Amino acid sequence: MLGSGGRRLLTTVLPVQRWPFQPSRDMRLVQFQAPHLTGPHLGLESGNGGGVINLNAFEPTLPRTMVEFLEQGEATLSVVKRALATHLPVLPRAEVTLLAPVTRPDKVVCVGMNYADHCREQNVPVPKEPIIFSKFASAIVGPYDDIILPPESQEVDWEVELAVVIGKRGKRIKAADAMAHVAGFTVAHDVSARDWQVKRNGKQWLLGKTFDTFCPLGPALVTKDSVADPHNLKICCRVNGEVMQSSNTNQMVFKTEELIAWVSRFVTLYPGDIILTGTPPGVGMFRKPPVFLKKGDEVQCEIEDLGVIVNKVV
Amino acid sequence: MLGSGGRRLLTTVLPVQRWPFQPSRDMRLVQFQAPHLTGPHLGLESGNGGGVINLNAFEPTLPRTMVEFLEQGEATLSVVKRALATHLPVLPRAEVTLLAPVTRPDKVVCVGMNYADHCREQNVPVPKEPIIFSKFASAIVGPYDDIILPPESQEVDWEVELAVVIGKRGKRIKAADAMAHVAGFTVAHDVSARDWQVKRNGKQWLLGKTFDTFCPLGPALVTKDSVADPHNLKICCRVNGEVMQSSNTNQMVFKTEELIAWVSRFVTLYPGDIILTGTPPGVGMFRKPPVFLKKGDEVQCEIEDLGVIVNKVV
Repeated sequence: MLGSGGRRLLTTVLPVQRWPFQPSRDMRLVQFQAPHLTGPHLGLESGNGGGVINLNAFEPTLPRTMVEFLEQGEATLSVVKRALATHLPVLPRAEVTLLAPVTRPDKVVCVGMNYADHCREQNVPVPKEPIIFSKFASAIVGPYDDIILPPESQEVDWEVELAVVIGKRGKRIKAADAMAHVAGFTVAHDVSARDWQVKRNGKQWLLGKTFDTFCPLGPALVTKDSVADPHNLKICCRVNGEVMQSSNTNQMVFKTEELIAWVSRFVTLYPGDIILTGTPPGVGMFRKPPVFLKKGDEVQCEIEDLGVIVNKVV
Repeated sequence: MLGSGGRRLLTTVLPVQRWPFQPSRDMRLVQFQAPHLTGPHLGLESGNGGGVINLNAFEPTLPRTMVEFLEQGEATLSVVKRALATHLPVLPRAEVTLLAPVTRPDKVVCVGMNYADHCREQNVPVPKEPIIFSKFASAIVGPYDDIILPPESQEVDWEVELAVVIGKRGKRIKAADAMAHVAGFTVAHDVSARDWQVKRNGKQWLLGKTFDTFCPLGPALVTKDSVADPHNLKICCRVNGEVMQSSNTNQMVFKTEELIAWVSRFVTLYPGDIILTGTPPGVGMFRKPPVFLKKGDEVQCEIEDLGVIVNKVV
């Protein structure tokens, strides 16, 4: 239901984009559950918002989780290509529950102040180096799951972000080689409790960023070959249908390749690791007066070609 | 070799303590490798610094990793109790390589400025609330592994810490119930690149704390029943044999129970999650003049009853 609501809004907000409602040949990997299946399964979304092909039924030797799937490397991708070329039964969208496309990664790396227009909004200079912080993986929830408003915060804010999913382990990766380490992209919502992020906890952002449910992800891991240019995608966030953030990933200060090169100077990147690449302007805290999320709000985070995630605040 | 060196130093630095060289009935869980075994195994250290019992050989249905072991809860602990009560072959220490007792946890939670004497050293007030930051799990290395000095930092510093290992999932855990969520304790070295922690990365500590190899852990997960009082343990750090930090966990501002209650207000704690509880005074950055680690240094972090980890800087 939410999915179809999301799709309806897309067509009004981004009317120039041709949205593929028909099954596509794009590789849109998902983790899903269904009443007749035990536990999470790996699937293929048949087009943005379409039904789901059960990859574990197609090839029973495939792992059930995305992290394990990615750890197995290129071989598993060839299985998916085979599935795409085969006529397979599609589970109707109403019969499946999409989970976050990646759960329990080793790392959720986040980048601060990475949109030129978001820096202007804050009256701060564009950073000379990426600013890196993190969420715990326990904050991840699915594309249509609820965001739980914690009683500890009165300033919970929205941030739509392009998320990069790492496909191949690496350390000190050169920018020129970085895309070989990317499995694909998905939509992330970097929910942020501003009071905790900037006023409490010794000004370390972590706690304000990592409350449970503060990292909705999805709907699918869209493989890099299915995205023409990740750095030229419309990106927007709507709260109760009102557009709050609307920009383009071409405003990113440090692109995917530079971020991977930077982060991997410090840490080994593992398959399944997620990099949230920063948010465009229009967040609640910089509005005059500031606006924050309240119970009952519905937040839609959408990126062109990747899809929309719809999360209700409860 | 390093292990026996570590034990020798213990007796000279903490002479009043009776160190159990004979096999003990304490439950000291380890992850280890041995030339005749494929991949990591779960073991039982027969006393601090002693040989290792292969728990997977004793009970082949036990998982091979500590996180999975802890996820299975109390039932698996009863298997270990059975192993302790049985006469089993002990692999000599020289034949095994100890890994970190926990690898790839969901979270490595760290606490800043949590020793009263460490706050005095910095001339800062004792915090009113815990200050929480994190490392990525990819920073974890074993008790005798090398610390790799990254060319990015000129100010790599030492910090010995008591680490709490979570045994049972929980959210909004009351302090009075917190110990029921603890599996046990181990020794951690919170290696810290001060230049990155306090001068770079928008003053977010993460990068300075999470370089690969910046979280040596071990030698064993000592279960809570085997530790008389985790908040009354001598704790010390030696660099090249010279005592740099020497305090007692009774100096902790927020104890284990309060830290678990605090952190679990924000996040669900999972089995295997690790909480580094802060460091006592004597770190390099507050010495006059400051002292930092250099290639060839050997750092020994030791906590009474838990053991010693010995990591060379390369």
